[in-house]
Amino acid sequence: MAISRKVREQMKESSWIRRMFEAGIELREAHGAENVFDLSLGNPLLEPPAEFRAELARLAADKTPNTHRYMPNGGFPEVRASVAEALAEESGVPVTGAEILMTVGAAGAINTILRSILDEGDEVVLLAPYFGEYPFYIQHQTGVAKTAACDDNWLPDITSLESAIGPRTRALIINSPNNPTGVIYPEASIAAIGEALTRAEEKYGTEIYLVSDEPYRKLIYSDQPYPFIFNHHPRSIVATSHSKDLGLAGERIGYLALNPTDPGKTDLMDALTFSIRTLGFVNAPALMQRAVAGIQRATVDIAIYRDKRDLLYGALIDIGYECVKPDGAFYVFPKSPIPDDTEFVRQLQKELVLVVPGIGFGTPGYFRASYCVDDWVIEGSIAGFRKVFEQANS
Amino acid sequence: MAISRKVREQMKESSWIRRMFEAGIELREAHGAENVFDLSLGNPLLEPPAEFRAELARLAADKTPNTHRYMPNGGFPEVRASVAEALAEESGVPVTGAEILMTVGAAGAINTILRSILDEGDEVVLLAPYFGEYPFYIQHQTGVAKTAACDDNWLPDITSLESAIGPRTRALIINSPNNPTGVIYPEASIAAIGEALTRAEEKYGTEIYLVSDEPYRKLIYSDQPYPFIFNHHPRSIVATSHSKDLGLAGERIGYLALNPTDPGKTDLMDALTFSIRTLGFVNAPALMQRAVAGIQRATVDIAIYRDKRDLLYGALIDIGYECVKPDGAFYVFPKSPIPDDTEFVRQLQKELVLVVPGIGFGTPGYFRASYCVDDWVIEGSIAGFRKVFEQANS
Repeated sequence: MAISRKVREQMKESSWIRRMFEAGIELREAHGAENVFDLSLGNPLLEPPAEFRAELARLAADKTPNTHRYMPNGGFPEVRASVAEALAEESGVPVTGAEILMTVGAAGAINTILRSILDEGDEVVLLAPYFGEYPFYIQHQTGVAKTAACDDNWLPDITSLESAIGPRTRALIINSPNNPTGVIYPEASIAAIGEALTRAEEKYGTEIYLVSDEPYRKLIYSDQPYPFIFNHHPRSIVATSHSKDLGLAGERIGYLALNPTDPGKTDLMDALTFSIRTLGFVNAPALMQRAVAGIQRATVDIAIYRDKRDLLYGALIDIGYECVKPDGAFYVFPKSPIPDDTEFVRQLQKELVLVVPGIGFGTPGYFRASYCVDDWVIEGSIAGFRKVFEQANS
Repeated sequence: MAISRKVREQMKESSWIRRMFEAGIELREAHGAENVFDLSLGNPLLEPPAEFRAELARLAADKTPNTHRYMPNGGFPEVRASVAEALAEESGVPVTGAEILMTVGAAGAINTILRSILDEGDEVVLLAPYFGEYPFYIQHQTGVAKTAACDDNWLPDITSLESAIGPRTRALIINSPNNPTGVIYPEASIAAIGEALTRAEEKYGTEIYLVSDEPYRKLIYSDQPYPFIFNHHPRSIVATSHSKDLGLAGERIGYLALNPTDPGKTDLMDALTFSIRTLGFVNAPALMQRAVAGIQRATVDIAIYRDKRDLLYGALIDIGYECVKPDGAFYVFPKSPIPDDTEFVRQLQKELVLVVPGIGFGTPGYFRASYCVDDWVIEGSIAGFRKVFEQANS
């Protein structure tokens, strides 16, 4: 077998995704696609906004030379400047183009960051529930994932965080609005995280990066301002993409932003520029860099996702599911009515409803349902959710 | 210092690139950009062909939904089918869409391949002179690079290759037309490589992949047909991009193709699909997938590169440089007139001519000059090439 042993093990760990995917295909074939209610995927539903279409049309007609060639690995300087200007306006922190690196989505950003700061066996802390791809990113970049817990409201448990940090901890990845919970970490949580990291740095004589994965930053359904990390820890990096806010998941366009007050930012940017190049990304796709530069303040129609949130969350609460109300992203993460979340997922499949078990997010006993789907999918799923809930409670 | 120690070491190894780059900036500032003759970069000069512009305009106006969302990690099925059809026609090998994975350029393809087949300490053989990024790709994917030599015509030395292969060898990367030599490996070389790999597999009881990095495959200035690898080793993978043939280096669009006769191709495709996802590429940029699907037979005007080849190669031979005539790509790789290639590069810099020392390609004593530049750059460099050559021979 020529396949990497390590990759085979990793694939085995995530083989439940494939089994679920295959189950979905079988159900569609057996019952018709219109009778299967698939809430398992995080594939942004909404088409890119009109501003994007206008930019794309403009760029397609633009004959400026040298726009499809290699540019500096960090991105076109004018694109970096535009992104910085919008982020500075949004965050109130004076980010400049020198602190921006355009990336192949947020996933590309995180791999680039991890490659730049990890040596073999270095540790990265995750807060469960976490996006299920993080452990693979960490392993690929030769690190070791450590897990800290969240409290009952899915907010960081600082005591748990502190005990997960050790002398080899190089980074903490947070993700707010969170996939899978939809919860937004408030300013107080970010501040407490920053303090915990500073204490740990002093205790161990190390430097620990706070990496904030923010692809859902503009998908927020409450009035609270989004708390940025930059004021709470000098070694902090924003990683994000336009997959969700501009509906461009397939285009692989995102960026990372360094903290202007990070004393190590110049060395870090050098390392990131080396890593994005040598990991094979080379640079973020040229045309998409130019397409998003001028529309940093545009988004898909967030109200549509909010209405879907209300529809699904409301229905689940009505049935009796326990669930922290999500204020962002496009997921709910309710408690499974039976302790075994994979068994619950199987029972739901029999009702032609597809969701993801909490084990996929490091948090068994729960499940994730995505509402980035057409309303008929949400509406059609409700009877199944009710039936399995009632079975569990009968 | 929060930067990975390993990355710092790697950056140090390639710090000459930065020094050269900085020297170039200083020279331009001191003497004016129009007086500096920069032959150091492999940034494709020619704009994408008219077919690309037409496709881009068509796609920008196309309102088909779901085209910017996530698609299967391997790419849009219809794009994979189109690419396969064109490759089958070109190679005479019945490749199908199931054997194609759309990638973030050839660099993304190679990292994805290496991640899928390497465990820590596994070895990958390179034929020197080789593209200077390969060692970083191999190291990032936890492998160890081993080097075999080429002969005086820059063709693979099979004896050297066989002694570089050991029990932990998992792959050989070849690159034809070659960066930096411009040489095309003839069918006989590919056949001999295939036989050597088969012998080694039998000797060690292993499976060894032949990875053919072919971004210059359509930049060929002779009449000889391009020899494909698929008929010469069952475990073989083509990795390529449209950076050069369509002038889309910044767009990060390429593909890899598995050998239809590889008995392990299904498992390998599964592993590659996992790796492209979890390395953070996720998928090749969606719009560019669709843009290149229908123009697989189009290229930039190759005759322009051929004329530049003739101009630079002819001038260097006239002066007295020893150089294997390149039949493809857009580089010449002459012998340095003094043994120390970095000293030669410094002497050329004084004449405002920038080239890359052979050490950057694992082959000291030579230098690479790129002719993917405007003619005035080539023409302006000739006096400098002459002066330094005459100094060395006086």
